[in-house]
Amino acid sequence: MNELAVTMVRIYLHEAKAHLKELLAYLHDDSKVHGVTVFRGITGFGNSGRYHSSTLMDVSLDLPLVIEFYDEPEKVSSIIEELNNRIKPGHIVWWPAKINTP
Amino acid sequence: MNELAVTMVRIYLHEAKAHLKELLAYLHDDSKVHGVTVFRGITGFGNSGRYHSSTLMDVSLDLPLVIEFYDEPEKVSSIIEELNNRIKPGHIVWWPAKINTP
Amino acid sequence: MNELAVTMVRIYLHEAKAHLKELLAYLHDDSKVHGVTVFRGITGFGNSGRYHSSTLMDVSLDLPLVIEFYDEPEKVSSIIEELNNRIKPGHIVWWPAKINTP
Repeated sequence: MNELAVTMVRIYLHEAKAHLKELLAYLHDDSKVHGVTVFRGITGFGNSGRYHSSTLMDVSLDLPLVIEFYDEPEKVSSIIEELNNRIKPGHIVWWPAKINTP
Repeated sequence: MNELAVTMVRIYLHEAKAHLKELLAYLHDDSKVHGVTVFRGITGFGNSGRYHSSTLMDVSLDLPLVIEFYDEPEKVSSIIEELNNRIKPGHIVWWPAKINTP
Repeated sequence: MNELAVTMVRIYLHEAKAHLKELLAYLHDDSKVHGVTVFRGITGFGNSGRYHSSTLMDVSLDLPLVIEFYDEPEKVSSIIEELNNRIKPGHIVWWPAKINTP
């Protein structure tokens, strides 16, 4: 099996402020990244220390969101460069990984 | 505290095509991996560019799924080798990590 | 763009045993980590091999939980040291990553 180097990226948002549509449109239409998955957390807190939670009784509209994607390192590098203008410092995390190839 | 090297793995599927049961059975019964967690995304898109989303109104049956596990590097290496026959290229991602030991 | 080295951490629990509140209180109040997100898996199994699942019909109270956070390597190192007293061996996973800075 051959393998390929990629950069894995996770972007941390919360729903209340999440320009999610706009970011997905950029990743989908402009950067044409290999694939994107969005996850919703059940609770969390950020720099403010304020919790973003949900309970069964109270469907919160301010839950944590994570946008995850991976692609070739050079491509991801220029995407992060661009996202840095749109996302607060410390909210984009990335690391090197491998993917399977045929 | 001692630590141990592992390989972290994430496999990207979507529900409509997800032979999830079959893959979990392999990981659970045959490969006997340390532990597995499956996450469901709230939206995403793959190589096709087609979105896999849900809304409150419309419970989609085609959401993104991620199967995550970690174990010793040699063991994971042979698991990835086997999974490569079952999973599309570029849909298995892995990287080195550490775990806590007593 | 400048970047900063961090350590990414994921802690694997399941709801039935999850001293989640206690752990979040520690991370929020004592360790004052940069930010934390908690995810709930839809199924999974641990060392016991026993599945922790949910179905639409049966809202399980024993689903997998992941607590995720990242911060400066030295800070995370001492947090892991402390968490190691509270979390079973092999259930804290970490790896080096980068974050965006202004």
